[in-house]
Amino acid sequence: MSEQTDRKFKQVGTRPIRPDGVDKVTGRARYGADASLPRMLHGAVLRSPYAHARIVSIDTSKASELPGVKAILTADDLPQVETGWVGDIAYGSDLGEMAANIMARRKVLYHGHAVAAVSATSDERAREACEMIEVEYEPLEPVLSIDHALAPDAPILHEHQAPMGDAPLPEGPTNIARHLLDEGGDVARGFAEADVIVEGVFETPMTHQGYIEPHACLADAREDGKVEIWCSTQGPFMVKEYTAAVLQYDPNDIKVVPSEIGGGFGGKTTIYLEPIAVALSRKTGRPVKMVMTREEVFRATGPASGTKIGMKLGARSDGTLIAGEARFDFEAGAYRGSAVTAAVMTAFSAYRLPNFRIEGFDIVVNKPKVAPYRAPGAPNAAFAAESLIDDLARTLGRDPIELRLQNASREGDRTTYGPVFGRIGFSETLETARAHPHWKAPLGKHQGRGIASGWWFNAGMQSSATVSVDEDGSAVVRTGNPDIGGSRASMALMTAEELAIPVERVRPVVGDTDSVGYCDTTGGSRTTYATGLAVIEATRQVVADLRARAATIWDVELDAVAWREGAAVLLNGRSDDSDKTPLPLEELTRQMRLTGGPIIASASVNPPAAAPAFGIHICDVEVDPETGVTRVVRYTVIQDAGKAIHPTYVEGQFQGGAAQGIGWALNEEYLFDEQGRLENAGFLDYRMPVASDLPMIDTVIVEVPNPLHPYGVRGVGETSIVPPLAAVANAVRDATGFRFHRLPLTPPRVLEGIEQVRR
Amino acid sequence: MSEQTDRKFKQVGTRPIRPDGVDKVTGRARYGADASLPRMLHGAVLRSPYAHARIVSIDTSKASELPGVKAILTADDLPQVETGWVGDIAYGSDLGEMAANIMARRKVLYHGHAVAAVSATSDERAREACEMIEVEYEPLEPVLSIDHALAPDAPILHEHQAPMGDAPLPEGPTNIARHLLDEGGDVARGFAEADVIVEGVFETPMTHQGYIEPHACLADAREDGKVEIWCSTQGPFMVKEYTAAVLQYDPNDIKVVPSEIGGGFGGKTTIYLEPIAVALSRKTGRPVKMVMTREEVFRATGPASGTKIGMKLGARSDGTLIAGEARFDFEAGAYRGSAVTAAVMTAFSAYRLPNFRIEGFDIVVNKPKVAPYRAPGAPNAAFAAESLIDDLARTLGRDPIELRLQNASREGDRTTYGPVFGRIGFSETLETARAHPHWKAPLGKHQGRGIASGWWFNAGMQSSATVSVDEDGSAVVRTGNPDIGGSRASMALMTAEELAIPVERVRPVVGDTDSVGYCDTTGGSRTTYATGLAVIEATRQVVADLRARAATIWDVELDAVAWREGAAVLLNGRSDDSDKTPLPLEELTRQMRLTGGPIIASASVNPPAAAPAFGIHICDVEVDPETGVTRVVRYTVIQDAGKAIHPTYVEGQFQGGAAQGIGWALNEEYLFDEQGRLENAGFLDYRMPVASDLPMIDTVIVEVPNPLHPYGVRGVGETSIVPPLAAVANAVRDATGFRFHRLPLTPPRVLEGIEQVRR
Repeated sequence: MSEQTDRKFKQVGTRPIRPDGVDKVTGRARYGADASLPRMLHGAVLRSPYAHARIVSIDTSKASELPGVKAILTADDLPQVETGWVGDIAYGSDLGEMAANIMARRKVLYHGHAVAAVSATSDERAREACEMIEVEYEPLEPVLSIDHALAPDAPILHEHQAPMGDAPLPEGPTNIARHLLDEGGDVARGFAEADVIVEGVFETPMTHQGYIEPHACLADAREDGKVEIWCSTQGPFMVKEYTAAVLQYDPNDIKVVPSEIGGGFGGKTTIYLEPIAVALSRKTGRPVKMVMTREEVFRATGPASGTKIGMKLGARSDGTLIAGEARFDFEAGAYRGSAVTAAVMTAFSAYRLPNFRIEGFDIVVNKPKVAPYRAPGAPNAAFAAESLIDDLARTLGRDPIELRLQNASREGDRTTYGPVFGRIGFSETLETARAHPHWKAPLGKHQGRGIASGWWFNAGMQSSATVSVDEDGSAVVRTGNPDIGGSRASMALMTAEELAIPVERVRPVVGDTDSVGYCDTTGGSRTTYATGLAVIEATRQVVADLRARAATIWDVELDAVAWREGAAVLLNGRSDDSDKTPLPLEELTRQMRLTGGPIIASASVNPPAAAPAFGIHICDVEVDPETGVTRVVRYTVIQDAGKAIHPTYVEGQFQGGAAQGIGWALNEEYLFDEQGRLENAGFLDYRMPVASDLPMIDTVIVEVPNPLHPYGVRGVGETSIVPPLAAVANAVRDATGFRFHRLPLTPPRVLEGIEQVRR
Repeated sequence: MSEQTDRKFKQVGTRPIRPDGVDKVTGRARYGADASLPRMLHGAVLRSPYAHARIVSIDTSKASELPGVKAILTADDLPQVETGWVGDIAYGSDLGEMAANIMARRKVLYHGHAVAAVSATSDERAREACEMIEVEYEPLEPVLSIDHALAPDAPILHEHQAPMGDAPLPEGPTNIARHLLDEGGDVARGFAEADVIVEGVFETPMTHQGYIEPHACLADAREDGKVEIWCSTQGPFMVKEYTAAVLQYDPNDIKVVPSEIGGGFGGKTTIYLEPIAVALSRKTGRPVKMVMTREEVFRATGPASGTKIGMKLGARSDGTLIAGEARFDFEAGAYRGSAVTAAVMTAFSAYRLPNFRIEGFDIVVNKPKVAPYRAPGAPNAAFAAESLIDDLARTLGRDPIELRLQNASREGDRTTYGPVFGRIGFSETLETARAHPHWKAPLGKHQGRGIASGWWFNAGMQSSATVSVDEDGSAVVRTGNPDIGGSRASMALMTAEELAIPVERVRPVVGDTDSVGYCDTTGGSRTTYATGLAVIEATRQVVADLRARAATIWDVELDAVAWREGAAVLLNGRSDDSDKTPLPLEELTRQMRLTGGPIIASASVNPPAAAPAFGIHICDVEVDPETGVTRVVRYTVIQDAGKAIHPTYVEGQFQGGAAQGIGWALNEEYLFDEQGRLENAGFLDYRMPVASDLPMIDTVIVEVPNPLHPYGVRGVGETSIVPPLAAVANAVRDATGFRFHRLPLTPPRVLEGIEQVRR
């Protein structure tokens, strides 16, 4: 791609101040809970105290008599939604199950499951009324682990659920919602030919994305059937489609306005409150605002799956991998749809592996229905695979980077799930790690070093963009992707690059579902890549129009005009063309009204998901042998960004992913009691890392251009959470001599490992 | 234009419920004063008690000590703006004068002229603080009439103002800001050859547009230099450009969000409060809301010019017009820029007139600076010209319709201002009037009938539109024109027509200056014509894309696919094409993501202003001979719409224009005392017609297609206010036998005329 390698970028790759920065710092930015309307009511949700129970009856009479209560809603007030499939980013969103998750019908399936909702004149009054709703339950035995779910005598969550999948399943109803199988080569012969085999059963608990901003929305259902929803979401078009589907409204009647978003990480790619707020608004004829408490966010939104992964790798004595086998059991929570699919796809594809067998099971349990969490499924898969690669290197006495380089997938290698990799940067990333000072730095006492790799596909999907230039020569770029990780800055930079003007002259706009063209949800690390493609295409149309205006002014053919350094220039001018000096953008825009009117262009794309990005993390830990307390003391993220549009944001994504992964490795887990009640539904008890817990995380941006993007952009948001679980575990293995198969590495657990080594 | 005449419209020409109707009826629609922000302050303006004075000093110290006062602003806090020209719809917006009108510097030029502004914690507190500002004035003699302004010893408002114009002017400073002259043929010989000459001096007072919603805005100037303005305006892009120019800000930093608008009629095509609110917000670091009182609207916004028109027409005895002469003196108010230009252009162009001389003077007086008011200048010109045509018909004993038909301009006739008319519908409109039952209906006692014609150019100018289709087959059309007269409905209808889907499936969006492509101000009756062109073009691009998707699905050439009745159809299908049944829009959109992604298109236009529309009004009045009270008892508007997109709105425009014109004819006028203080600055004393004052106004839509628009659309909003002044005056002439040359026709004035006839 000559454009990628020869191009001298002027704007892309710089680090301007973020366009949304000042508003966020000064508190002006408006988040999900920051909208209000005249006559607004407040809504609250009554949630199940049982993890598994049948609903016998709901009596709302007392609650409805409370002054200030305007409407009460149960599942009976909502349409009975048939099963069906909508959208495509939220893994396996079955429509009927989405509706049942939003408001329980007949059965509650987790502690915190919505049972009824109230709208009242204040939030407090609405919550008070919830407490006065009398629900009679018939408690059922809860299913709280994968092993229990798969046991022959396990209670069945969904009696009538037909499992899906590629492989045969047992007769009759089970808690298995989906069964996946990918096979290649001859795995038995592979292992038979292996000189070394490493294996283990790895377990990770449910964890939450921990976004700072709770779910919040404001719905306004009007007399003419039109509905407007203001909410914090990664996907306004998704909210529109899903809400319409759940309420059986015409999508044409629904407009969704995305607020600023205080974190999502995949957790805001589905809906919880929106249909309830709309239904309450319709019932009362007044706008209804709903805001979750932190406890509700933990109990009733979608965490990442708890997982159990059995994995085995076989290699020749020279280190060549020849066989791999894995079984992934992923908790789906109450309804089908875990990220086991991506775990199956990513687990072995980073390496050349001729013989493999990978099974995946999506298993329902009486816990909240999971939602995507940054590179969903891949961190768990990498925890297992990269721990085993580490074991293999130790067994063979090989440098873990060299061993990975020896087996690393390259352009042209086939993935375990079928497609062949295009140009990828795994080897370059590994080579960068090998050369990094961190890798050779000495370690202190009780310290250990781990390394791990990880990767993510980076989605393509649908995006639109509209670009225009104003009379003053400034430009506007409009897309429909909420800015969760710097997309305003990256869209502005790409627009500025194509127009060859300073980025400060470009205003990036995130529009509502009526204002802008369709964009799939911000997620899958797709936005800068896919929406960026639409932006570049629309801007190039604008540049073509600008050239045409110059050609008109100069009375020459369009082909005689080029666009250079923010100006139209005449190619191959003759000696009598001295009046045809370069026409800068602002000169052309000032004359727009005389040369045909405003300049505006729209473009849309649906590019393939074929921009995989690889990362490698180096982690140093210090483990206190007396207490088992583990501290990360040095951490380096090396990742292929393809092309870093705004390097500071890219580094921030690297650091954020590493921080979340370290939390997952060391501290975070959903703790349920034996009745399935979440015991740590708050940030005091669910311990995420804070700044004082972590060292400054170093970053190195590798740039191996993605051939599908004119600048080479891949995605950067997700890969960075894939390696940390294994990188930390490998470092703790290095420090303690003990291989941990279960996360998080809490002090008692680490101490127990240290004890075992000492014995 | 075969497209215009052969086309069978399915959506265009129907009367769907207006998309904005329910929100407006239920009070949900948000107007200029309906926005609020956290920490918001309120701003108020101190206004001059003198019509003409020098400002000696301003002492703000006492006011600034009032608790709750956060900032005080005078002209010294604003940049000294040099003269210059911005934009183009507000007639003669000189930048320096616009700034001086917004906040007086050194001199006040009318009673109500802004002198200082305060922001405080409440509107009441801000107004209280204004009263505490001590201003020392040196009063000057006010200039309150055209005659006084032109007198040799008149005080001069602007000592250093250089007059503009086409014709020589006296040496030294005068109150004449502009002098226009259009001549054709040999006017002296024309009159010499005339068999009949009619003439008169006609006078009309200042009148106000009387929009229900006062000017209001909310400005938020942020720490990073960005400014957001919410306001009621006809032109958000105009507000952005003008505010940036007056404050010398970078337009790139300003975003303007148009609220719903409660009437404008041309009065909201300029700015008054916005720069003050922005400057106060910048000074305080807090959002500032400013809302005018009704009194402020009357005193300090832009009414229509008071005018004095001397006019003479000469005709042969067979009725053929052969000479015309006119002098238009228009009050500009305090600063240059009246609509005398349009008066000069429209006065005689409706008729074939071989010899003419038309002079126009733009004259400054100590009254508020005028602003456009619906067909600015044309009603005054038509009042004179159509009164004289009526006199001519009476003198010659001719039917007034026949006389007009005999002289009516037709396609190919040259206007007095230069261009040649294209296809116009004046004759058709006259013929429709001749055939209308009203024209032949008997009159009662004390009743009289008048008829008058009028016309308006209908502007072109710049517009953009972006159209997309959603997965559910619905569509969105986005423009930047505030909906002052039904443009949401007309844009949706044109989009629906091109897509061949029900209009209910189209959502029209009016965006802010960042959300949508550039659109010139809603005004000049340009929106449905010019913005409609952009909408049709963008929708046609969408249809082309839909056809391409169908071609992809069917694996045929694009040319083999047509778009019919909301579906792609295969042309000249072969017998084995039976699977290629019509693909309806919603089938194609459901497959969009598989055929290339979202479908969106943008288009922009800058068409010529060449869609003139003619109207003829028939008015019956009943005059009480004892009191002089005149009532309109029957009224019919016949007007060429070119093509009525939404006939109900077209009829509404016809009726609204007629009602305003009747008010102008019978009741409305600015009444100043001898010091230049407006004495009737409120709706109790400034008497606009209300529903009970008027009969139901009948309407007839004539459709002579405009060749420049694919459906034939002209504009409809302005022509309808042009004939009423003369129609009413001619009817009163018919009832009383007296020719009135001065408006309004108040009972004392009418009584005086009746007395004169009796004498």
